[in-house]
Amino acid sequence: MLNKNIETFLGCDNEYGEADIVVFGAPFDSTTSFRPGTRFASRTMRGESYGLETYSPYQDKDLEDYFIFDGGDLELCFGDTEKALTAIESYTTRVLRDNKRPVMIGGEHLVTLGAVRAVARKYPDLHVVHFDAHADLRDDYLGITLSHATVLHRVWDIIGDGRIYQFGIRSGERSEFQWGKEHVTTQKFNFEGLAEVIEKLQGQPVYFTLDLDVLDPSVFPGTGTPEPGGVSFIELLEAIQQVSRLNLVGCDINELSPVYDQSGASTAVACKVLRELLLAMA
Amino acid sequence: MLNKNIETFLGCDNEYGEADIVVFGAPFDSTTSFRPGTRFASRTMRGESYGLETYSPYQDKDLEDYFIFDGGDLELCFGDTEKALTAIESYTTRVLRDNKRPVMIGGEHLVTLGAVRAVARKYPDLHVVHFDAHADLRDDYLGITLSHATVLHRVWDIIGDGRIYQFGIRSGERSEFQWGKEHVTTQKFNFEGLAEVIEKLQGQPVYFTLDLDVLDPSVFPGTGTPEPGGVSFIELLEAIQQVSRLNLVGCDINELSPVYDQSGASTAVACKVLRELLLAMA
Amino acid sequence: MLNKNIETFLGCDNEYGEADIVVFGAPFDSTTSFRPGTRFASRTMRGESYGLETYSPYQDKDLEDYFIFDGGDLELCFGDTEKALTAIESYTTRVLRDNKRPVMIGGEHLVTLGAVRAVARKYPDLHVVHFDAHADLRDDYLGITLSHATVLHRVWDIIGDGRIYQFGIRSGERSEFQWGKEHVTTQKFNFEGLAEVIEKLQGQPVYFTLDLDVLDPSVFPGTGTPEPGGVSFIELLEAIQQVSRLNLVGCDINELSPVYDQSGASTAVACKVLRELLLAMA
Amino acid sequence: MLNKNIETFLGCDNEYGEADIVVFGAPFDSTTSFRPGTRFASRTMRGESYGLETYSPYQDKDLEDYFIFDGGDLELCFGDTEKALTAIESYTTRVLRDNKRPVMIGGEHLVTLGAVRAVARKYPDLHVVHFDAHADLRDDYLGITLSHATVLHRVWDIIGDGRIYQFGIRSGERSEFQWGKEHVTTQKFNFEGLAEVIEKLQGQPVYFTLDLDVLDPSVFPGTGTPEPGGVSFIELLEAIQQVSRLNLVGCDINELSPVYDQSGASTAVACKVLRELLLAMA
Amino acid sequence: MLNKNIETFLGCDNEYGEADIVVFGAPFDSTTSFRPGTRFASRTMRGESYGLETYSPYQDKDLEDYFIFDGGDLELCFGDTEKALTAIESYTTRVLRDNKRPVMIGGEHLVTLGAVRAVARKYPDLHVVHFDAHADLRDDYLGITLSHATVLHRVWDIIGDGRIYQFGIRSGERSEFQWGKEHVTTQKFNFEGLAEVIEKLQGQPVYFTLDLDVLDPSVFPGTGTPEPGGVSFIELLEAIQQVSRLNLVGCDINELSPVYDQSGASTAVACKVLRELLLAMA
Amino acid sequence: MLNKNIETFLGCDNEYGEADIVVFGAPFDSTTSFRPGTRFASRTMRGESYGLETYSPYQDKDLEDYFIFDGGDLELCFGDTEKALTAIESYTTRVLRDNKRPVMIGGEHLVTLGAVRAVARKYPDLHVVHFDAHADLRDDYLGITLSHATVLHRVWDIIGDGRIYQFGIRSGERSEFQWGKEHVTTQKFNFEGLAEVIEKLQGQPVYFTLDLDVLDPSVFPGTGTPEPGGVSFIELLEAIQQVSRLNLVGCDINELSPVYDQSGASTAVACKVLRELLLAMA
Repeated sequence: MLNKNIETFLGCDNEYGEADIVVFGAPFDSTTSFRPGTRFASRTMRGESYGLETYSPYQDKDLEDYFIFDGGDLELCFGDTEKALTAIESYTTRVLRDNKRPVMIGGEHLVTLGAVRAVARKYPDLHVVHFDAHADLRDDYLGITLSHATVLHRVWDIIGDGRIYQFGIRSGERSEFQWGKEHVTTQKFNFEGLAEVIEKLQGQPVYFTLDLDVLDPSVFPGTGTPEPGGVSFIELLEAIQQVSRLNLVGCDINELSPVYDQSGASTAVACKVLRELLLAMA
Repeated sequence: MLNKNIETFLGCDNEYGEADIVVFGAPFDSTTSFRPGTRFASRTMRGESYGLETYSPYQDKDLEDYFIFDGGDLELCFGDTEKALTAIESYTTRVLRDNKRPVMIGGEHLVTLGAVRAVARKYPDLHVVHFDAHADLRDDYLGITLSHATVLHRVWDIIGDGRIYQFGIRSGERSEFQWGKEHVTTQKFNFEGLAEVIEKLQGQPVYFTLDLDVLDPSVFPGTGTPEPGGVSFIELLEAIQQVSRLNLVGCDINELSPVYDQSGASTAVACKVLRELLLAMA
Repeated sequence: MLNKNIETFLGCDNEYGEADIVVFGAPFDSTTSFRPGTRFASRTMRGESYGLETYSPYQDKDLEDYFIFDGGDLELCFGDTEKALTAIESYTTRVLRDNKRPVMIGGEHLVTLGAVRAVARKYPDLHVVHFDAHADLRDDYLGITLSHATVLHRVWDIIGDGRIYQFGIRSGERSEFQWGKEHVTTQKFNFEGLAEVIEKLQGQPVYFTLDLDVLDPSVFPGTGTPEPGGVSFIELLEAIQQVSRLNLVGCDINELSPVYDQSGASTAVACKVLRELLLAMA
Repeated sequence: MLNKNIETFLGCDNEYGEADIVVFGAPFDSTTSFRPGTRFASRTMRGESYGLETYSPYQDKDLEDYFIFDGGDLELCFGDTEKALTAIESYTTRVLRDNKRPVMIGGEHLVTLGAVRAVARKYPDLHVVHFDAHADLRDDYLGITLSHATVLHRVWDIIGDGRIYQFGIRSGERSEFQWGKEHVTTQKFNFEGLAEVIEKLQGQPVYFTLDLDVLDPSVFPGTGTPEPGGVSFIELLEAIQQVSRLNLVGCDINELSPVYDQSGASTAVACKVLRELLLAMA
Repeated sequence: MLNKNIETFLGCDNEYGEADIVVFGAPFDSTTSFRPGTRFASRTMRGESYGLETYSPYQDKDLEDYFIFDGGDLELCFGDTEKALTAIESYTTRVLRDNKRPVMIGGEHLVTLGAVRAVARKYPDLHVVHFDAHADLRDDYLGITLSHATVLHRVWDIIGDGRIYQFGIRSGERSEFQWGKEHVTTQKFNFEGLAEVIEKLQGQPVYFTLDLDVLDPSVFPGTGTPEPGGVSFIELLEAIQQVSRLNLVGCDINELSPVYDQSGASTAVACKVLRELLLAMA
Repeated sequence: MLNKNIETFLGCDNEYGEADIVVFGAPFDSTTSFRPGTRFASRTMRGESYGLETYSPYQDKDLEDYFIFDGGDLELCFGDTEKALTAIESYTTRVLRDNKRPVMIGGEHLVTLGAVRAVARKYPDLHVVHFDAHADLRDDYLGITLSHATVLHRVWDIIGDGRIYQFGIRSGERSEFQWGKEHVTTQKFNFEGLAEVIEKLQGQPVYFTLDLDVLDPSVFPGTGTPEPGGVSFIELLEAIQQVSRLNLVGCDINELSPVYDQSGASTAVACKVLRELLLAMA
């Protein structure tokens, strides 16, 4: 009996039952206002991850020593945002119910909302750590409330004031920054103050959402809205290792758009970031 | 007093008041299920159209001899399909009210629905001539009823049986072809029978919707879903000249996706098709 | 219990036990002398095949009505040609032993040799039908006998004179054409005479090897050695339908190189050819 | 009455009469000796600028608060360099006469000469601050005196010794550096000494010419002659803010070549640099 | 003693003294008004020609049997058109003086003027056969008289009425076609009438200039101004074989722009066309 | 008598007899396991090197002042690794015998083995300095012992313990790092400790092998296996200048893959690194 073709992210080939961490893809980008294409991120990352090793010399850990399951991509429909978010929420709920930790690969940043809905139901005192180039704090975008540009505002609707910690933010409307001052903690441009936040959130359940465009476009050009002036790869790696000291109950990485990554270097970055995140969490 | 930067499609630089034909862009692709990017078609076509001449040796006509206005692109939001369709419908209504003929540049094929809503209100006995690789006759797509894959079914909801004439169709689910046999006239693969349809529809108000993927991908690779086995450029040109013998009350061309057109040849095709269509209508 | 991520070619999701046809990938291109990259063909085709429908309006057949298994890609090492051929041969042998028909996705054309070794052992009276731009009849290439440029000569070593029928050939050294006149049947440039060959081979076991560069580069630019002057997509489709009247005991399609296919049109062609071939065989 | 399609750079949509700053494009690259394509920079930047926000968190300023006019692109002919320079000179003269400040988007670096001719006529004591990877100080290039490689030498012809301050220079012939020592101030590789120059030039009329290839190609690959070893985006931003403390009577940014910018990241950099420059000047 | 690196077009490795045909490159594109880049054609063709065979199954001839010299590329300066044309003229004169036949690889189409100046001096009764998508008959282009868009008008200045035979023309201003009717013979869209022209010109010295954009962009997308509706590769091959029955005293092929040829298929077409042209002439 | 077309790397146009340094290409990538294409590096670098100057402002030296010969590319066959290595070894031996120093342009990293075989025969006390992202220390890769992933292990087979000094290593299997601790000196991530190694190796014959992927993919995306987290261009330049203080008896730079370098920036980096290396050695 020969086997069907199974494709997982590098080293994430365990069975669901034995896994502690569940990786899955949320290929959705219907609200992307500038350049779409993040729907292809998870599939591309699975294929390209085999250019990496399972072993990390940064952490001296190996993915083969841990139990991680890759559930593949959700089948999300384009053109009905709420339906897509519901599908994400329900998969995440299932994973949480089985006491596993979800790690979602976006898609545009709005997919975070689906996951946070599920996670916040299980952990009402949830906090969110958010790395991004963009504040994503608008209340609506051209009249649309469910949008990549409003996602952190929607998360705030659920978890409320003082629970969101943003780092690396270097783009937004003036009004977003103003609103943010009242409701969230925003570190512009870099990761200054991250250590203090990590300290403060010890013991709390934390959802970590990583928009990869927090990286400088020199490092990560393959994204819908390249925003010059971002952090370096090493700065991000160190920040992730700090974040892993938290009680992470769910994570996502998002906004890789492979169609703008002709050299493949952005996908390699996304894969390596995911490997390091998984190893840090494991 | 220096002038602001005005960008129109080649030779379409007349004022609204004096124009007979109104060109506008509908940059929307939120329901595209495979590879998005048609939102960039109209803008790219405007820029690249200057590689063409205004004169057509095929028709011995020159765009400079006619009165055509380019209204630019509608500002459509991504993530709320109905809202986008309403905006298209309302712009089209305005154009029709002023007794001008709309020529819309998509976007994905669903934008046709917005225009047809307006046109069918003015012309209740409307017929539709449809060139495409795909039947687009599903009733829903993954539960979504407003989709690029359902657009001709939605048009049928408005104008009813026996009013839609499809040509060049070479892809669809089996059930689409079966449903189509009862409700629309479908010519598979090519333009056979077009002359008879043109004859039959003389005098009737006709909306002409041209999905450029009716062309073979060798001619037109720059589209979301390349479907081998299509018609040649010359076959399409001749078919358009035939169609122009109808009483065309509105038209659109759609599904150019510039991000998959690195050589620019697909955009050149789209521009030349639009030039020939405008000259044929004028 | 959630499921692992299974990726198959469109509509080829049956279990091995129930399948009549077994699709598998042979990602090998170590001997490619000009532009490598065919190793990525099978993986890319699986991902992109979802832009197609399972239903063919050409044959009025649907992949969902047949039992086809996709075994994924063999793990072939680069740099040791004989080892790679042995792995292909042994997988093919297994499939044949279970009375299923192998359909291999290359890879460079040399992979055919691995499959033919297995097939010819089971069917000693094997004939080969070969569509290609290149004769591939050299005895060696820069001193190498196992090469994409020698593969049909190596097949001839196994099955002997008068058993190989080539169509579409438009490139080769003068000496290849001269040698070919003695040992194989070569139709230059097109498919003339195919009907007669089909007639003659009725009842014989036939292996069909399809180098996709038999297509014109306008239709299929995404290949290592584009060779202008090839057949059209429709000509190939018709030829495949003719070939399917033979007793096909094994097939392959090869030489798609996705890295030279930025528009995706070549991959779409390869996927549609494979769909039509599978439907014709089923 | 519907409006024609107006396309301006982000936030530069004021009328000419009310504007303080006039942005315009000079799409010329006929003397480019290596890889042409900068002619497409201004058009591409206008289109892509909508991926940015009008608000800058760096300067806490918003383009919407200022009065900037975008006059579009000059129509320059290719193949007659002097004619193109004259057209640039005459547009610039008009802008200066109306007491507005010109900000030109190249094109190749030679376009600077056209603007400087006009500016130096109005401000005979003009100084020039020049950021670039290349010295551009040759007297002729293959016998041609009007060339991208000679432009600063031509500027020196007009304004004379001690008036040109170069920064970031990391490429040139040995003879250029030698000539430069006598006639201009050159800081190799970086912005060291910029503060002193800013101090010294206080009160003087200054033309600022920014060849974007002063940036490292990791940040800005989309240029005709990528020259590794350049400055970072943040270093450039800080230098621009320093330069804005001068009495800037004219500026240009040049050498973006969109055809070599497949990811769009270089265009994003150019747009953000222009936004920051405009905000710093306003 | 080891050898320096010599790079010639496939099979053109004879010494100058023994050669009958002299191939050389004219990498110039300064007057290109739309998308530049043909300056890279000759270099790219040399490198990629090794994907072809020296043997042609179309003509049953082999480049290795003939004596052809490749002199490499002229060093032409950008920005001084007359200087570049003079350099081409003088190299061509040298070749003609040595009783060899020049075959020039452009570059933009204007390079033809340099060669024709030399050839017409030696052969005052010269005729020109011209394959192209564009008429190239303007008297000036934006005030420039030496331009890719005026080149055949400039050739007419030298050789006069009734000496130019154009085929495949499908683009131009109305006035060009009108002027052409008086002075040249123009066959629109295809090669109809070529046989008669060949007959009529027997015995006359003929210069053959082949703008590769006479091919349809599906076959040849890699050019500055893709113009849909062109001839097929086989049609061009047959036309070239007809033309070779003339007394060809000089030839050129031009307008390949490799930067728009990501798949390499256009370069492969250009190389194969040149191979067939050389074999037909030899 | 006109000259054949000679193409050398920038400024390396001396005759073999007078040269001290011999540059040559080794276009081989048959064992590359991920993305092939380095076979095109040397040819592409020769062509693109003319975007650089011969003068280095870093070292204040000019290539025109030194005697360097470019022997072009070896003709290596794909599919027989040992044969290719033997060809490299024998060319290198010839160069060494003539008391010149070889500088080889790969190709994949395995080509180093061919050169080291020759160099170590002449210099039995050879040491190797190795810059790379990957350890390349496996004993076999999928059963293959001659592989890009094993090359430094194969070098160790020849020169033994304590003779290999690795810098910048950031990827490998855990077992490679473990084996490496016993047999080689490995500096992870950067160049720390390089000065001490340089000191220690004074007077010893040293072979320097530079895998360009030691650079961060932001600087050098055009490689088969981009590995984020690498060194900067300036760090590499400084390290090369240090290395040049050694008694370098042979060098190579490898792993540029132009097909993944659409902007050309990676090729520019490779060319500039080679220029600086040649100047440092000269």
